[in-house]
Amino acid sequence: MRTVRDEQEVFRGELFEAGILVPTGIDGVYLRSQAFEEIVRGIDRLVSAAGADEHATTLHFPLVVPRTLLERTDYIRSFPDLSGTVSSYQGGELGYAGLLEALDTAQDWSAQLESTDLALCSAACHPLYPTLPTQLPAGGLRFEVFGTCFRHEPSPDPARMQTFRQHEFVYVGDPVEARRHRDRWVERGLQLHRSLGLPIEAVVANDPFFGRFGDILAASQIDEALKIELVSPICSESSPTALTSANCHLEHFGLAFSLCNPDGEVAHSACVGFGAERITLALLHTHGIDPGDWPPAVRDRLWP
Amino acid sequence: MRTVRDEQEVFRGELFEAGILVPTGIDGVYLRSQAFEEIVRGIDRLVSAAGADEHATTLHFPLVVPRTLLERTDYIRSFPDLSGTVSSYQGGELGYAGLLEALDTAQDWSAQLESTDLALCSAACHPLYPTLPTQLPAGGLRFEVFGTCFRHEPSPDPARMQTFRQHEFVYVGDPVEARRHRDRWVERGLQLHRSLGLPIEAVVANDPFFGRFGDILAASQIDEALKIELVSPICSESSPTALTSANCHLEHFGLAFSLCNPDGEVAHSACVGFGAERITLALLHTHGIDPGDWPPAVRDRLWP
Repeated sequence: MRTVRDEQEVFRGELFEAGILVPTGIDGVYLRSQAFEEIVRGIDRLVSAAGADEHATTLHFPLVVPRTLLERTDYIRSFPDLSGTVSSYQGGELGYAGLLEALDTAQDWSAQLESTDLALCSAACHPLYPTLPTQLPAGGLRFEVFGTCFRHEPSPDPARMQTFRQHEFVYVGDPVEARRHRDRWVERGLQLHRSLGLPIEAVVANDPFFGRFGDILAASQIDEALKIELVSPICSESSPTALTSANCHLEHFGLAFSLCNPDGEVAHSACVGFGAERITLALLHTHGIDPGDWPPAVRDRLWP
Repeated sequence: MRTVRDEQEVFRGELFEAGILVPTGIDGVYLRSQAFEEIVRGIDRLVSAAGADEHATTLHFPLVVPRTLLERTDYIRSFPDLSGTVSSYQGGELGYAGLLEALDTAQDWSAQLESTDLALCSAACHPLYPTLPTQLPAGGLRFEVFGTCFRHEPSPDPARMQTFRQHEFVYVGDPVEARRHRDRWVERGLQLHRSLGLPIEAVVANDPFFGRFGDILAASQIDEALKIELVSPICSESSPTALTSANCHLEHFGLAFSLCNPDGEVAHSACVGFGAERITLALLHTHGIDPGDWPPAVRDRLWP
């Protein structure tokens, strides 16, 4: 019987074979074909259309962000093993001979580099919060966000890439409206995935918090049902893949970035994030490796 | 009299004021507006159209690549100060207390991280070469490449971002055809920028090679006129900005990645790279901060 790992490797092999992804020798890091990108664009268009009535401000984020963001969001405490920071050579002319020697003798030259003030973005909406006014307007603020995330978790599962895009709608402001935002987007998300012929189900998320207290944080996340994932079986019926997630942050970012509502209370926030790569892979797994052969209804939705 | 630095800061201030770029607190790292991205898309469409007759294979690259790529391309020797590698926490449960203590006491927690096998991509076409067959077909191979590059060079010049996109056309194969590719794209590039109303000029490039031998490498690059830059005055007439560059690599990547032509000789390569962010900024500087007010001919070219 084939294991989940086997299924993942078979599917990844098909993607390589068809040239939809090109291997780089590192699990979770791939070159992507134009066919792959055209599916992503189709999904982006549908997600934008689903949120058009929010009249949100649209922002595009870089993968590289200030390193302090990992501290301010607490990401480095909760998921240190998934985090990424950027190092560079800063030793000037004096240290250059040492760097060359390490390179010439095939030693580990990373010891010659030093950490910069930059990190890789860990969640698409994180760069947004430090840009917001600390006094929010009545009714809150709405954003549509295109971000790229990094997670250091090499895996042969093609749906677990080390860098991936998230297309988000974020609400910051009133506590009740934040929860409504989350709930509305669970419904919209289910509808959007179903309209593409994908089997999809909403479940309470269970994030891999790190360390001794990680289990407690994870249990509390489940108890409070703060984060809902829309999951679809890509390579496994029993461990389906989260394609999209909708998350109530409560006061987390409000406190971290001193965001206040007009009533003086700490702002709440919530976001929905559509995983462009994962939805693309779910479509390729469900409808077949050649988008030219997909059901006309799905093709018409993606490329009207 | 205003210095170049003054001009750069004034222009960046205008971009911030108009919400086209949003500051993150780090020079060269910005959030981008939808208006900015729509200009980038228009440019991408024009560049693709200019190369449509090449029938190139299109690939999209991630910003994160195998760290060994910096060694194999020699980038880490030539530009160590601009390079970036990725570190992550790999200390398991045992080291976690140390990480938390560093965070709690506002110490530098980067010492708790270790280098991974990943780096940031330093030039858009670099991830291509290790994916090529070592025996190239007669006539060589052509690629259209969308890549994102990282350069660790914080600057208040909005045109010097730390991450930026390059839209490239790459040829690998015959030495004569490689040079033709470069020369043809210099002409096409000049035409493309002129059609957008940009002042543009082709000059021999002068890259900032690092270290004692850097001057020699730079002098040789100039003598052989291998790399041609298409420059336009954004914030300075005397130091115009390279928007696009066309580069003969000679045998550099052929040797590094063991690429052979059918005649058994080492393959040559050449590429042209259009700098999406810089062309966008040149348009905003030349035609004004509001794309709605741009000359109709330019708008029609970008958004037909």
